[in-house]
Amino acid sequence: MLRHIISRSFSSNSPTLKEIFRSRQLNQPVKVKGWVKTIRSMKELLFSDINDGTTGENLQLVCDKSDKSKLIFGSSIEASGMLTETPKGQLEVKVDNIKVIGDCPTENYPYVARTSYSPEYIRENLHLRSRVSSFNSMIRCRHVLSNIIHNYLFNEGFIQIHTPILTVNDCEGGGEVFMVKPDSEELIKVMRKNETDKNEEVFFDRKAFLTVSGQLHLESMAHGLTKVYTLGPTFRAENSKSAIHLSEFYMLELEESFIESLDDVIRTITKMFKTVTKEFLDKSSDEIMRINKSNKDFNIEERFNWMDKEFQVLTYDEAFKIIKNNENKFKTVVDYKEGISKEQEIFLTNYCKVPCFVIDWPKEQKSFYMRQKKDNPNIVEALDFLIPQVGEVAGGSVREDNYDRLKAKMSTDESLRWYLDLRKYGSVTTGGFGMGFDRYLQYLLNIHSIKDVIPFPRWAHNCSM
Amino acid sequence: MLRHIISRSFSSNSPTLKEIFRSRQLNQPVKVKGWVKTIRSMKELLFSDINDGTTGENLQLVCDKSDKSKLIFGSSIEASGMLTETPKGQLEVKVDNIKVIGDCPTENYPYVARTSYSPEYIRENLHLRSRVSSFNSMIRCRHVLSNIIHNYLFNEGFIQIHTPILTVNDCEGGGEVFMVKPDSEELIKVMRKNETDKNEEVFFDRKAFLTVSGQLHLESMAHGLTKVYTLGPTFRAENSKSAIHLSEFYMLELEESFIESLDDVIRTITKMFKTVTKEFLDKSSDEIMRINKSNKDFNIEERFNWMDKEFQVLTYDEAFKIIKNNENKFKTVVDYKEGISKEQEIFLTNYCKVPCFVIDWPKEQKSFYMRQKKDNPNIVEALDFLIPQVGEVAGGSVREDNYDRLKAKMSTDESLRWYLDLRKYGSVTTGGFGMGFDRYLQYLLNIHSIKDVIPFPRWAHNCSM
Repeated sequence: MLRHIISRSFSSNSPTLKEIFRSRQLNQPVKVKGWVKTIRSMKELLFSDINDGTTGENLQLVCDKSDKSKLIFGSSIEASGMLTETPKGQLEVKVDNIKVIGDCPTENYPYVARTSYSPEYIRENLHLRSRVSSFNSMIRCRHVLSNIIHNYLFNEGFIQIHTPILTVNDCEGGGEVFMVKPDSEELIKVMRKNETDKNEEVFFDRKAFLTVSGQLHLESMAHGLTKVYTLGPTFRAENSKSAIHLSEFYMLELEESFIESLDDVIRTITKMFKTVTKEFLDKSSDEIMRINKSNKDFNIEERFNWMDKEFQVLTYDEAFKIIKNNENKFKTVVDYKEGISKEQEIFLTNYCKVPCFVIDWPKEQKSFYMRQKKDNPNIVEALDFLIPQVGEVAGGSVREDNYDRLKAKMSTDESLRWYLDLRKYGSVTTGGFGMGFDRYLQYLLNIHSIKDVIPFPRWAHNCSM
Repeated sequence: MLRHIISRSFSSNSPTLKEIFRSRQLNQPVKVKGWVKTIRSMKELLFSDINDGTTGENLQLVCDKSDKSKLIFGSSIEASGMLTETPKGQLEVKVDNIKVIGDCPTENYPYVARTSYSPEYIRENLHLRSRVSSFNSMIRCRHVLSNIIHNYLFNEGFIQIHTPILTVNDCEGGGEVFMVKPDSEELIKVMRKNETDKNEEVFFDRKAFLTVSGQLHLESMAHGLTKVYTLGPTFRAENSKSAIHLSEFYMLELEESFIESLDDVIRTITKMFKTVTKEFLDKSSDEIMRINKSNKDFNIEERFNWMDKEFQVLTYDEAFKIIKNNENKFKTVVDYKEGISKEQEIFLTNYCKVPCFVIDWPKEQKSFYMRQKKDNPNIVEALDFLIPQVGEVAGGSVREDNYDRLKAKMSTDESLRWYLDLRKYGSVTTGGFGMGFDRYLQYLLNIHSIKDVIPFPRWAHNCSM
């Protein structure tokens, strides 16, 4: 039979615009593909910018007036011609031939040429957002940031763990969880072992939830692999429309064994945050400028002028005193027991003029798994990491490493028995943090709403596509 | 206030074993940390291997007999001493001082020294799997493979898209989906807009599911960004215990615009599969050998001897003839309308002696979104990519790019109206594939069950932690 099998040789696709800009093979014939962004008529010629989303730069086509009917805003085309350079050094294609791949009727298409739209309007058609240049800049930035973080942590010796989405634990104990069950009633019937089980207990023999944090799972891995992290989606069933909350959002969580104190966690965050931000700015400042091109107040140097400065570290008590001394500036309540509101967080970062850590929190305000301070059992070794514009972008702690103290603070829930085991068999002190990846990107790009830094935002009453 | 704030200098953590092996600073004092793997007594000395999970290599400690009580299997220790070399060039530490960080009582600890365990046994205690050397080798390999894939696609110009976990679409239409709703009855009550809505329709105004594939979302992004991919968890509510199925598994999905035919998809898969596999073998063959050390039949050269050969391409009809001619070798049914069983897939890869593509499938066996062949409307431009041991590791197709044909094949379900829009406004031909990341890793590492290539496996009646 095998002799009947065709051996294929594979011809290469035509190059993307990114490849054309990179290789700059002037005075060579070229075939380019993309979507029509602009059309300008000048004397005997038509000028059209196309883009294929692989780069933020548009490519200018110089066409004959007779091609007018083929150059429709939003349509996809293939153009052949000679790659040349304008007197100002800008690439352009002197077009011989244009082929329309897919036209773009104006009826019900949400965009028209030379018009800018609000993020809210663009968000109404999630499936067509990739036709919007500023959205595509954001997506490429999200991709670059994710790539920089993964490679930074790889080089620092951290091992990526795919922590589970489905879990029977509720890490934060907040109760704002989504529950999961098979959609098929038939399947539930077939799989049922026990008549008294609720439908949602049948598939996994118990109720399962969408993860709110991979931290506890990371801890189990850190107790054998030492340096681990995860970067993936986490979920909250919150009735919120805020500019910094989503039902499905991305979190970078990191856990490190054999640490000694909160200083180790502060050092890890500081080094990562500065190194990753610097590399991101080196690679993506063009895109940041494109995203902010209509904002005249935007100044990229000013925004990141903290890069070479030392971050501030304040105890909760110190931070609270600063807030108390400025009480009249806040709409939100100023109360030692209430913690620090978003508005107050942002005030603190402006006050310090650099990103800052708030450490040593009253234990009542933090989770059960955080370690008590040796000299003060009412304080836990926890931190919030605050940055301008978004406030808290990360929270971390040294984890309670004492079996008896941890047991006393835990609920008697059997589903977390395994977590106590980690302090029983070859226990080590671990610490780590969770950082909101989307909020970090919001800050880097100066994008107001978290809904506009993720391709498919989900929040209360909204799950399009 | 600011003058009260402490400025901290950060001392560095002690090095990981990976760093010690890499820098090899002989005859220098060193402090090492890890878990005790073995203890051997010889004359006046004790030899102990420790490991911290950052590398597959254990580090040998040479200790005094008086340290015996501190060297307990499974416990975590810190040892100080001089880093030296054995006559055979192996690193070891001549220990001055040992400190026990966390001891390891034998009571209820699932492992004892010098014993190997079945994967099923190790799986019983997911939270302690990171104490098992072969499991840690797998985790490091999973990390390396993920990193190689992301960087390969980055360099090839593909943009990573975080496709959503929560979706109102069921891409494959198989119905084997998990449904999601808030766990809190209180929240549902507060959020209810419409008395007739079911509980599961309240949070998102309609029923939401866990994604079974990000393909359709990727297509919407490819229609503006050209080259996109996603690598993340996907879900199936299947009542299966098989060695290649999980309820939560990882899929690499890729979509490319401006393609012409299935050959483009074949070329993309072939180039990626060969390049990534080669780089993985270059970086991780030591780990593969460690994982297979008790398997005397394992031959790494033989396993990957297809690397320099051309992959086979068979049409479905050609593949079926081969199967039909060998009918007596199968337990599963041989029927043109039934497709190709797992057993038959693996037979085909053995028959071809290389990974192979099966293309041009009868349309009844494939999804609605696959493009009809020009010369035969009963055949769709789809492919299965088969590799030894696991069979199908990827499936792909050219997507139907004709508005009317696609509309005729789609259900009238309003939730996919947006998908038709992609063929209306600036339509392009796209194609792509989905590859089972865990199955690929199974094949690379020669690990029998998919449950042992993922840190927290979830399947029917199993969701531990």
